[in-house]
Amino acid sequence: MSKESRQWVLKSRPPGLVGPEHFELKQTSVGEPGEGEILVRTLYLSFDPTQRGWLNEGPGYTDPVAIGAPMFGAGLGQVVKSNDPKFQEGDILNGMMPWQDYALIKDGGLMPLHKVSREHPLTWAFSVFGITTMTAYFGLQEVGQVKEGDVVLISGAAGATGSAVAEIAKIRGASKVIGVAGGPEKCTWIVGEGACDAAIDYKNDDIAARLKELAPDGVNVFYDNTGGPVLDAALANLADRARVVICGGIATGYSSWEMPEGPKNYLFLILKSARMEGFLLFNYMDRFPQAIADIGKWVQQGKLKVHETLLEGLENAPAALQGLFTGKNKGKTILKVADPD
Amino acid sequence: MSKESRQWVLKSRPPGLVGPEHFELKQTSVGEPGEGEILVRTLYLSFDPTQRGWLNEGPGYTDPVAIGAPMFGAGLGQVVKSNDPKFQEGDILNGMMPWQDYALIKDGGLMPLHKVSREHPLTWAFSVFGITTMTAYFGLQEVGQVKEGDVVLISGAAGATGSAVAEIAKIRGASKVIGVAGGPEKCTWIVGEGACDAAIDYKNDDIAARLKELAPDGVNVFYDNTGGPVLDAALANLADRARVVICGGIATGYSSWEMPEGPKNYLFLILKSARMEGFLLFNYMDRFPQAIADIGKWVQQGKLKVHETLLEGLENAPAALQGLFTGKNKGKTILKVADPD
Repeated sequence: MSKESRQWVLKSRPPGLVGPEHFELKQTSVGEPGEGEILVRTLYLSFDPTQRGWLNEGPGYTDPVAIGAPMFGAGLGQVVKSNDPKFQEGDILNGMMPWQDYALIKDGGLMPLHKVSREHPLTWAFSVFGITTMTAYFGLQEVGQVKEGDVVLISGAAGATGSAVAEIAKIRGASKVIGVAGGPEKCTWIVGEGACDAAIDYKNDDIAARLKELAPDGVNVFYDNTGGPVLDAALANLADRARVVICGGIATGYSSWEMPEGPKNYLFLILKSARMEGFLLFNYMDRFPQAIADIGKWVQQGKLKVHETLLEGLENAPAALQGLFTGKNKGKTILKVADPD
Repeated sequence: MSKESRQWVLKSRPPGLVGPEHFELKQTSVGEPGEGEILVRTLYLSFDPTQRGWLNEGPGYTDPVAIGAPMFGAGLGQVVKSNDPKFQEGDILNGMMPWQDYALIKDGGLMPLHKVSREHPLTWAFSVFGITTMTAYFGLQEVGQVKEGDVVLISGAAGATGSAVAEIAKIRGASKVIGVAGGPEKCTWIVGEGACDAAIDYKNDDIAARLKELAPDGVNVFYDNTGGPVLDAALANLADRARVVICGGIATGYSSWEMPEGPKNYLFLILKSARMEGFLLFNYMDRFPQAIADIGKWVQQGKLKVHETLLEGLENAPAALQGLFTGKNKGKTILKVADPD
């Protein structure tokens, strides 16, 4: 029962911005599942900034993708044939999937495989129930220790994580949520469609001056998805005992392992008795059920919206990944590969 | 009863390294104490890196010293005449003192005035019972959350705060204490006289390679007094859930308000779910009695040594301050101005 399939492999390591030129689309034949393996037909692929890190050589929380090896990411696949007794033909599984039409997968690794209910639209697995909302949920609440009345600043506020952070901040009683995004269109979107009370356009505004104006008493929680000049401006405008949640560094780290610019204003952490803290979502895996219950309730109550950029066609996978870093995509980026049976 | 006195005033703001050229020694006449004031004869002056920050314009936890105004710092003075009912002639007081032979002081401000017992050598008020040991005590335990078995790294390990951090780390059961200092002499001192188990010479060693060798499983607590290349090396070699205590930034911040170099490796905070946190000692003022009790006990048990660089003569005050930043002074820097009656 071998299946003809397209397959994206890594051609070269991107020195900076990742793009289609770093991948190659090959034709392959996917054979019978071995012991414990499952043959799936890919339905959807999810795109996350953390995937950029897997393309670099050097230390990371997982091994880098090898040159010539299939690129992968979170995805949904429908079981064609299963040698894993936990899953049956027709089941829709959520887990790490290679960028292929058909693939052999196995439970274990970065994320355990799990069945997805068809009660909700399938893409919700990556948008409201996905890694990005989970990251927002634990990052803002556990690392950021958000409290009622806090002024919350968010960089990358038009992204999937950022827009969820804004909504959860309002749900948790933040007095003001300020989002940073690039360009007037995104800034309008994060206030109009998103949950932000105010926007800073990092491409056109004087970030520091605008932040001072919007948060004259300082920022209690800064949820940082980007690093760079926004991080420096935030550090210089913290409230006492502020929490800076380091969730990512698009502006510095992900596009180059050199990480050339550190936050030169980090000594403000002393003046404000403040802290800067990083985290990995995997630390909180045992608490996902509670998160899913909370988030499900908030979606039903209309407090958490579904934000998706839905692209189509496996051939567009590298472009979809690139779109995370060029500012093209709003909300969660998902690629539809095929419909379920 | 007016007293002739020498007086150091600030002449200009140092753009980088502070030195005698930024101060001027004047002759002044100190008059009768007014309502609530106390006339003291200065006995000892203490020198702390934080004083450098008071010379900069710009935001800080206290107003900058004005040009032409007397420079000051922690000091001991003996009461000549008191209009404050809490203190009597002959009492020795610990508090903020201008750099003068005689001065009018008043309770309140940055540190409350308090009487010093003559049971111990007077200089102990600044060494083992002083701000630096207190900073080490709260920074390592409250911010650094040091635990038994931790690997502790300390920059500026030959300084007053750094050497106390090393001792308290051993008292609290750290499995290994690694000190960073400049030059072979200091490195020998922090291991021989001080409580460090190993030393890194930042002037001669490959900091990152040596750290990796000494702490192959990463650092649990990094107590950072300097910033700069040591901070970057430490960030790249953290253990999971590590705590980076930001106590100072001699290598970057204090010598220039521009703070040109931030820690470019800060994204390792994500990979290690680690945090970087600053603090001000003033936050813990209500817990000083407990700290003094602990520290007193440790000194008696011989677990905490007294480390002092004792200079003499008010005319040497600016040079004593400069010595903090040029690497000349070991342990706590104290200047003797006069003997008590």
